[in-house]
Amino acid sequence: MPELHLLSPLGFRASGVYAGIKRAQTPDVGLLICDTLATAAAVFTTNKVCAAPVKVGREHVRAGKLRGVVMNSGNANACTGKQGEKDARRMCEVASSLVGAEAEMFLPSSTGIIGHMLPMNKVERGIVEAGQYLGTSHEHALLFTDAILTTDTRRKAAAVEFKVGRQKVRLAGVCKGAGMIGPRMVAPGTKHATMLAYLTTDAKISPALLKKLLASSAEGSFNAVTIDDHTSTNDTAAILASGASGASIDYPATVKSFTRALDEVCQSLAYQIAADGEGATKVVKITVTGAATEQDAKLMARFIANSPLVKCAMHGNDPNWGRIVSAAGMSGATFDPDRAELTLQGTPVFRRGTPVAFDPEAVSQSLKSKDVSVILTCRSGKGAATVWTCDLSKEYITINADYHT
Amino acid sequence: MPELHLLSPLGFRASGVYAGIKRAQTPDVGLLICDTLATAAAVFTTNKVCAAPVKVGREHVRAGKLRGVVMNSGNANACTGKQGEKDARRMCEVASSLVGAEAEMFLPSSTGIIGHMLPMNKVERGIVEAGQYLGTSHEHALLFTDAILTTDTRRKAAAVEFKVGRQKVRLAGVCKGAGMIGPRMVAPGTKHATMLAYLTTDAKISPALLKKLLASSAEGSFNAVTIDDHTSTNDTAAILASGASGASIDYPATVKSFTRALDEVCQSLAYQIAADGEGATKVVKITVTGAATEQDAKLMARFIANSPLVKCAMHGNDPNWGRIVSAAGMSGATFDPDRAELTLQGTPVFRRGTPVAFDPEAVSQSLKSKDVSVILTCRSGKGAATVWTCDLSKEYITINADYHT
Repeated sequence: MPELHLLSPLGFRASGVYAGIKRAQTPDVGLLICDTLATAAAVFTTNKVCAAPVKVGREHVRAGKLRGVVMNSGNANACTGKQGEKDARRMCEVASSLVGAEAEMFLPSSTGIIGHMLPMNKVERGIVEAGQYLGTSHEHALLFTDAILTTDTRRKAAAVEFKVGRQKVRLAGVCKGAGMIGPRMVAPGTKHATMLAYLTTDAKISPALLKKLLASSAEGSFNAVTIDDHTSTNDTAAILASGASGASIDYPATVKSFTRALDEVCQSLAYQIAADGEGATKVVKITVTGAATEQDAKLMARFIANSPLVKCAMHGNDPNWGRIVSAAGMSGATFDPDRAELTLQGTPVFRRGTPVAFDPEAVSQSLKSKDVSVILTCRSGKGAATVWTCDLSKEYITINADYHT
Repeated sequence: MPELHLLSPLGFRASGVYAGIKRAQTPDVGLLICDTLATAAAVFTTNKVCAAPVKVGREHVRAGKLRGVVMNSGNANACTGKQGEKDARRMCEVASSLVGAEAEMFLPSSTGIIGHMLPMNKVERGIVEAGQYLGTSHEHALLFTDAILTTDTRRKAAAVEFKVGRQKVRLAGVCKGAGMIGPRMVAPGTKHATMLAYLTTDAKISPALLKKLLASSAEGSFNAVTIDDHTSTNDTAAILASGASGASIDYPATVKSFTRALDEVCQSLAYQIAADGEGATKVVKITVTGAATEQDAKLMARFIANSPLVKCAMHGNDPNWGRIVSAAGMSGATFDPDRAELTLQGTPVFRRGTPVAFDPEAVSQSLKSKDVSVILTCRSGKGAATVWTCDLSKEYITINADYHT
């Protein structure tokens, strides 16, 4: 079986071109088109400072139908006022004219520096050029994938094929995100990345169901990743369903299959974001179980994941578990250290209020893995949550002290 | 006038000795004694994982009377269960026996690594030795000041002399804190560091008033400093009032003078903590005004101060203000970017939803100062708050990835 990619789902074309917005000469304008009017859903940042394309995107996705996505990297079009909104709408106009659709059928996205007006000459020229190179090959998928990257060091993609009855259905996605990662995205109209994720599928599904499933999948994947806990102005995850497979997602068994596929792709992408966090050398998976509530579990997992002291200890392969337990204690969640247990890579280090004797050399060795597991068992209830993060290294400082205005 | 120090207030003696707890051969056991029974108040960490000396200290300070403070650095006596509490009580016993007082008349404190039992042989020997070298000189104050330090690169002290009527009163303090700094301390009994601060004064004041004034001063000083937003298991700020000046703090004008002196000393100490933050090269003062409420102002100031992206930008002298505005937007506070204005070192960079043109080179130059001012004006109400933080440098990573278990 050939490798699956973003354009494996039937009915999609894409491309990416270099329009001169980014300094690095890699694609910075991307187009993803569905041949027909796709069912669509998206979740957006909850930051009160949201970028122009997010404002416009919320409007355009409201009806649950899209022809495509038009995006640029290198400039976030955020904090750019009325002109920024005009520019985001103009991106949709130019993209839609290429396929004879209305501007409202396009979702605009931008990622990059905040507070600079988009160089619209370059952007418009880029969109038109991207329109000339649309295709369905793996190469085309890669060009689009490259176009969404900023400080990312590698592409992030995932795809699955599954069966609905006898019909094969495909679901794929790509994403970016290396810094300013602490997504808290919700479907517009409810109350909850620059994480960008675009997913394609050739399943046939209703807008309402797609919206619900995307919001749920995002909560356990993208919204459970944190690099620096900085919720971006531009975070967006969108899915387009072409329906071209002919397989309908409409009764429990098919919904279950689709949900499993969607969770798999979203979680793979989320993991890849953590692994490529700015300066990251490892992924740290924080699991909290037995919390009083799920909300408490999330809160503790997030406080642990966001503590620079914990992240530095992980970078130094240091089993300095006091930092982890104290991060849980400061989270505001119900937490009783006298009932709790903590394991690092499977080794208990703290139990019921007191230290457990362990071999620090051996545990330090085990922390040298690319994948570190931290499990906090609270014995206060049934709440559980998992959050993915990365370690904090000097490279993070280099990247972010020098990513210049 | 000779330089004021911790032992300038009448009625106090102190010392510090090296007992072999810290690796560095600098004092690690400190004793601060009041010649008479002092009026005392203290605020403690709100972390649910609180160290044994904090548990014991809350008990001992309850009656508002203390003979002194006994402390060690190099080991936090946190997450050490019942034995840890026994050890904290034993420290008080040994200290109190030196001056013929009861154990309950001493406040114990510890700072250092979490999750290790105190080496009580060394600690006890240290306390007894410290008891033999008590004195009132500046040298004695410095030995105590040194005993409380861990990763601090310098001593932190402040002292003032003021008049109450015709009487001279002195108020002084020392503190430590370089990492795991995000204090949220409250007086026991209400609901709210390893920041440690000890203050002395020879004013005469009631326990209830002293408790109230310390809590209020701490809120605008120690609780407004963040290095890494990690509320420690051990944070403690305590004040002892000997009354030896004979000046009573009991009517409005005297309370005002005392409050001003207390605020001045606490804010100076808090500033010194920010300036000596692990890896810090500068102090960043974040002021938020015009917020809907004071709580909203604090929330936004704290989110800005804690964003690693903002702290890295400050380290790189980069006027990348989008990170600042977006940190306010993610805080959860009421915030409308279309009404807001942001200045960096006095230069407006963002106003009412759009960028303000500025000379990036000039602003970058101005950010090279040791003291950086960030002011966010919200135009939503009358809430205001100030938070002090420092930049985030590679040195922070070095310190915290290598501070080994």
